Amino acid sequence: MIIKLKSAPTITTSSCVGGKEERRGPLGDKLDFYDESDKFDCDTWEKSESEMQRRAFNHLLSKRKLQISDIDVLIAGDLINQCTSSSYGLLSFDIPYIGIFGACSTAALGLGLCGILCDGGYTKNAAIVTSSHFCSAERQFRFPLEYGSQRPPTAQHTATAAGAFLIEKEGKGAHIDEVMFGITVDAGISDANNMGAAMAPAAVDTLLKYFRESGTGLEDYDLIVTGDLGYEGHRIVTEMMHTLGYDMSGVYNDCGLMLYDRQKQDMHAGASGCGCSAFAMAASVLPDIVSGKYKNVLFLGSGALLSQASVLQGENIPGVVHLVKLSHREG
Amino acid sequence: MIIKLKSAPTITTSSCVGGKEERRGPLGDKLDFYDESDKFDCDTWEKSESEMQRRAFNHLLSKRKLQISDIDVLIAGDLINQCTSSSYGLLSFDIPYIGIFGACSTAALGLGLCGILCDGGYTKNAAIVTSSHFCSAERQFRFPLEYGSQRPPTAQHTATAAGAFLIEKEGKGAHIDEVMFGITVDAGISDANNMGAAMAPAAVDTLLKYFRESGTGLEDYDLIVTGDLGYEGHRIVTEMMHTLGYDMSGVYNDCGLMLYDRQKQDMHAGASGCGCSAFAMAASVLPDIVSGKYKNVLFLGSGALLSQASVLQGENIPGVVHLVKLSHREG
Repeated sequence: MIIKLKSAPTITTSSCVGGKEERRGPLGDKLDFYDESDKFDCDTWEKSESEMQRRAFNHLLSKRKLQISDIDVLIAGDLINQCTSSSYGLLSFDIPYIGIFGACSTAALGLGLCGILCDGGYTKNAAIVTSSHFCSAERQFRFPLEYGSQRPPTAQHTATAAGAFLIEKEGKGAHIDEVMFGITVDAGISDANNMGAAMAPAAVDTLLKYFRESGTGLEDYDLIVTGDLGYEGHRIVTEMMHTLGYDMSGVYNDCGLMLYDRQKQDMHAGASGCGCSAFAMAASVLPDIVSGKYKNVLFLGSGALLSQASVLQGENIPGVVHLVKLSHREG
Repeated sequence: MIIKLKSAPTITTSSCVGGKEERRGPLGDKLDFYDESDKFDCDTWEKSESEMQRRAFNHLLSKRKLQISDIDVLIAGDLINQCTSSSYGLLSFDIPYIGIFGACSTAALGLGLCGILCDGGYTKNAAIVTSSHFCSAERQFRFPLEYGSQRPPTAQHTATAAGAFLIEKEGKGAHIDEVMFGITVDAGISDANNMGAAMAPAAVDTLLKYFRESGTGLEDYDLIVTGDLGYEGHRIVTEMMHTLGYDMSGVYNDCGLMLYDRQKQDMHAGASGCGCSAFAMAASVLPDIVSGKYKNVLFLGSGALLSQASVLQGENIPGVVHLVKLSHREG
């Protein structure tokens, strides 16, 4: 179901923070802050991830020249158990706090909710912060780094990155025209090292439903960008859409392909994590909408709803994909 | 910041599912479904919890005589890592899915978001489902049951329960007049067996802010009910408010005190968990609003934002408390 935001609230400001590999990648020079050690002056990886959220949000405030008390609501989420990267990272900001969980779709889910809150006049602005950290995610979902486990080619590299966005009722920036929350889709994949395959069918599901309900098609968009399907998921989406008569070439990209240089960085199937799409949107897609390079963009945030326990218990990995329609407006 | 819902959407339907101890308690005969084994025909506690959500939502649909396709959006959350009780439990319902995380405040957070979606006309209805399970929570946050660890008197008993609510733009039921999302508060408590103390200051913070901004006081409400502070947290809130000149006696209750018989059931400091307030609201508070016993109610859902890792790393436990103002209307 497409939710139309009549006032088309604006993403006026965004910020991003990253680690060593993110700095080395193609978007590295867009980072507001980076730490080559990935530690961000903290003594555990979980605290490092929290600290990335804190810094990303601080950069957001300073870019927009706002105080903490100017922000009406703060939405946040991450991959870590009980979303502690968010709750601890943003603890020092006394702002009404809404925790969300959409795995790697969190940035899109949060942008959608922020858009609704501003469009309805419930808040004058709303911020969303998300993060992921390679080291905290590996320890939690797979193995601690010290174990030195090998990763198969289909495995994605959880981005060490955090992104923050400010949505306001009015202002200059990328406009949120529509939101479509996705349904959870079980594609029968149970391999935690192949999340692209687990999420791709959910992306196709949400995209086709959106095309059908909106009466639009590929030709209406300059860019369709999925959250973090990586090379594997990007290929599956391209193939699935091709069999349905859609030629995605030229219009389709994935945030998981944008963070690292495939030739120079050994990142397997590309990037993933709540910080992946947040970083890619903040560093690349949103600036390109503001500049007018892209006029109409569909951002499909993709999440794999697994936990370590669900994988160990042999469950499949459901995917969920939330869509946000973004547009450039003159003036 | 108080968010006013001008159309005052209605909680038209609610349902609840529980386990053995919940059935034995004072609200046991209000359960739509219970299982004396706490297993709900599943072979792991995590799957049992998912199954509770599925059954609670099924009961909600059948009570309201609705099909899956009649529901516009489904909001859900729980305590389990990556909220898998929700995503797996509700996987079979093809409804746009929003995952939220507010620990034990999830029911209040979700009711607030559902109210906003309906009030703004973004959806014609919205459902929220939450759950918790004593056995999955003990294994995750403290020790597996097989370990047989002793629990101190301040420890709360995670309720084995799930609740589901349907919010509609119009209809007969309890109305959602206002929502106030809380800020995260660090009260300096790091004991995972004393979450009442960790959350109580956040409850007082949200309540006082609400009183100040709304210009109302205790005398304006028939009932102020916190989520699941238990005996310890209820006592702390009562004392803190007393020192500030508020006499809470007669008007203040806590969902954590409502589920078990303190004399007959050995439940330490009372109930907790995402299912606790959902069950208490569905089984007791909402029916009493509909009947007119209560005209104006403040529901303050309370969450302790801890994880096993945050406790092991010696972090304090932040609390967050979201407020929902509910009212009875004639006709």
